[in-house]
Amino acid sequence: MSEPSEFSEVPHTSIADIDVGHVEALRRAIRKGDSGAIRVLLTDEHPAEMADRFEQLSNDDQAALVELTPDVISPLMLAELEDEVVEDILPLLGRKQISKAMEELDSDDAIQIFEELPKERRAQVLADLPEQDRKEIEDGFAFDEETAGRLMQREFVAAPAFWTVAQTIEHMRTQSTLGDDNLPDKFFDIYVIDAHFHPLGYLPLSTLMRSQPDLVLEDIMDTNLTVIKPELDQEDVAYLFEKYNLISAPVVDADGRLSGMITVDDIVEIIQDEHTEDMLALAGVSEAGLVDTVGSTVKARAPWLLVNLFTAIVASFVISLFQSEIEKLVALAVLMPIVASMGGNTGTQALTVAIRAIATRDLTPANTARVIRREAFAALANGIIFAVILGLITYFWFRNIDLSLVIAAALVFNLLCAGLAGILVPLTLRKFGADPAVASSVFVTTVTDVVGFLVFLGLAAMFLL
Amino acid sequence: MSEPSEFSEVPHTSIADIDVGHVEALRRAIRKGDSGAIRVLLTDEHPAEMADRFEQLSNDDQAALVELTPDVISPLMLAELEDEVVEDILPLLGRKQISKAMEELDSDDAIQIFEELPKERRAQVLADLPEQDRKEIEDGFAFDEETAGRLMQREFVAAPAFWTVAQTIEHMRTQSTLGDDNLPDKFFDIYVIDAHFHPLGYLPLSTLMRSQPDLVLEDIMDTNLTVIKPELDQEDVAYLFEKYNLISAPVVDADGRLSGMITVDDIVEIIQDEHTEDMLALAGVSEAGLVDTVGSTVKARAPWLLVNLFTAIVASFVISLFQSEIEKLVALAVLMPIVASMGGNTGTQALTVAIRAIATRDLTPANTARVIRREAFAALANGIIFAVILGLITYFWFRNIDLSLVIAAALVFNLLCAGLAGILVPLTLRKFGADPAVASSVFVTTVTDVVGFLVFLGLAAMFLL
Repeated sequence: MSEPSEFSEVPHTSIADIDVGHVEALRRAIRKGDSGAIRVLLTDEHPAEMADRFEQLSNDDQAALVELTPDVISPLMLAELEDEVVEDILPLLGRKQISKAMEELDSDDAIQIFEELPKERRAQVLADLPEQDRKEIEDGFAFDEETAGRLMQREFVAAPAFWTVAQTIEHMRTQSTLGDDNLPDKFFDIYVIDAHFHPLGYLPLSTLMRSQPDLVLEDIMDTNLTVIKPELDQEDVAYLFEKYNLISAPVVDADGRLSGMITVDDIVEIIQDEHTEDMLALAGVSEAGLVDTVGSTVKARAPWLLVNLFTAIVASFVISLFQSEIEKLVALAVLMPIVASMGGNTGTQALTVAIRAIATRDLTPANTARVIRREAFAALANGIIFAVILGLITYFWFRNIDLSLVIAAALVFNLLCAGLAGILVPLTLRKFGADPAVASSVFVTTVTDVVGFLVFLGLAAMFLL
Repeated sequence: MSEPSEFSEVPHTSIADIDVGHVEALRRAIRKGDSGAIRVLLTDEHPAEMADRFEQLSNDDQAALVELTPDVISPLMLAELEDEVVEDILPLLGRKQISKAMEELDSDDAIQIFEELPKERRAQVLADLPEQDRKEIEDGFAFDEETAGRLMQREFVAAPAFWTVAQTIEHMRTQSTLGDDNLPDKFFDIYVIDAHFHPLGYLPLSTLMRSQPDLVLEDIMDTNLTVIKPELDQEDVAYLFEKYNLISAPVVDADGRLSGMITVDDIVEIIQDEHTEDMLALAGVSEAGLVDTVGSTVKARAPWLLVNLFTAIVASFVISLFQSEIEKLVALAVLMPIVASMGGNTGTQALTVAIRAIATRDLTPANTARVIRREAFAALANGIIFAVILGLITYFWFRNIDLSLVIAAALVFNLLCAGLAGILVPLTLRKFGADPAVASSVFVTTVTDVVGFLVFLGLAAMFLL
């Protein structure tokens, strides 16, 4: 038995930040082509740790490492790497190594690797796999990307409703002793099924564990089961896991037969991915946002900058309609960006709250009307507050009471439009089936810029000059 | 045994969107004061479902419902409600109901409810609790908010290293049969301990389940244990769960003794909360961002609007330095918002990518230099691309080649500054221990506005007039 003194050596006792020195040493070993040192630096670590270190390297260093020591990329490490990284290194790995990794991993992880394989190599790798593994990959691949069918693993534990607790435990022990253990690496619930393989309920292992051995599963199972269909979008799957605090959930085929299982550790990843997607979409960065090279960074960002250029020109065109007014009263040019900027900010605030509420499903058809009303009144209230402040500042700056009144009125109106645009734009996008986060900030700031300049300069043209 | 035909009645078979009609019926029942109807509408549902419906109601309706039928707020439903909602309804519930709920729930959920209690009622509720529950609450409350100590539950399963699989299972069965079952409601791992209650390793239930009964725990346990200290920030706890795909993790006290457990379902919530925090911080909405009333919405947003007003005035002041230039060439006023707007967009893109990379710990000291370089070159590349486009547009619009060259040069310079500000501002905030998401967008847009106006108008003053 381990001594208490060994306790302090238990790894990961605190937050494991990347060790800069370690990554630096790895980089030097790669540059020197010292495969021995690389092996030492990347051995005997948790695969997640190795994956993290590997991902700290530049693309070139990653490629050099794989060419020097392809064997350090273990199956479990491959499963921990980001998709983009896997895509980059798979072409550098041998056919044998890839098929061996896919064979060893649970089917959901194997499919994720298969997805990143160049198309022309897929048939080859499939041919190397044992019959059952090949079938599992092919079946999973038949479902669309980002659906429950792609996500699920085909390894799960099911037991007939008439089995006792003792029988069920005995069955698992026997399965494990047999060479061909088709149990999942980890599982948390047992699905109770009828003769047609339809799930009737589930039993958390912790319940099974503490139940008397002679109890029958159907008497102790929880029938409040969340069953997932394979075509369900992964975002919806994640929502069900969150809502019902699930640890695992069964996936059924079109006939309602149990065909797979999704576990919470995959869900945590999906939540992170979906969140990254939302944030990048709001900022106008396309999908491949967290990329490594300058070229791909430019490619991920230029498209929305182009859209922004176009909308900025529209706003400028609005200003150009009032050139003679600006020539007569140059204070208009000085002050106009304030009205636009405050509107942009108000719109972004409302928009972000709305996008978040849509993502967490707090904003639903049942409360939309109330939320729109709230946004309108809140924007109006802020509009009035800041109109007073800005009006006073303008007065003390330019000593022109009419100019103060014009900017105050323009601000109230623009903030109201901003608040409404912030909530209505994402709702409208959603209504038409589009992702409410994509493009919505461009729409909103276009509204606030155009309305801001138009109303401020328009009122000035009418009442000041 | 259930018939296969019953299968279709299994609840939650697909994505459970809020039923608008149902919420509407609830609203009508509340307005009519029909407690019977409320009870029917809120009975026999999953507590998460009931919580969701309740949260769709306005504050006033929620309060009215609680006053009419306080008993429908079950302990489990209370545990599913958002903190802000719990805070609002606790004052409406009786002393007995609150203490009963806290007694029934696992200690982590009980503490979350206790946190939302008005301070003056806390002692009273504590006094109502049985000795052990009271002690657990007091112990947990001694830790800071948003730490592992607050988060953990004190119910967990530990077994000495010398026990066999059969002994361990038998122990749990006996515990459950005893009236006072102090096992957690759900658990996924068993922590293997030495004589001093120090964790030596863990055993997933799925491993325990498939192991032969006579095996000794220490021979089959996994020693690669992630041990959490109670003072660890919840964001760091979530990071460890994600990185190592944990389902549960033990928390140890200062002496390394096992004192609690954190489970993945709480982590999913934390990840969501931290996302919300990051997004709202980036948009300049203060903590209480997803609130219900107009008053609190205004309060959550006005502070950053005030900061934005100040920075917008700074930008206006920059413009005011060039009033005579604008009077001479009013095209400057027309074009200047484009330079600022493109800069703001570039800055926001870089900033969002950086904030996200910091949150997911992809941006670390080991690759900071490379990422800064990448941002600078990407911004420069986009600057050159859009300078050419904007230069051409300007030429065809105003037929002034010098103006074209000035705006092109200003754009390149502003985009470079924007890209650098986008990455350097959050890194600097983090260096000084501040949340990199809070306030960073204000800093970045201030830079892009001021630099944009200053460089464009400054160059114009030097070379055009």
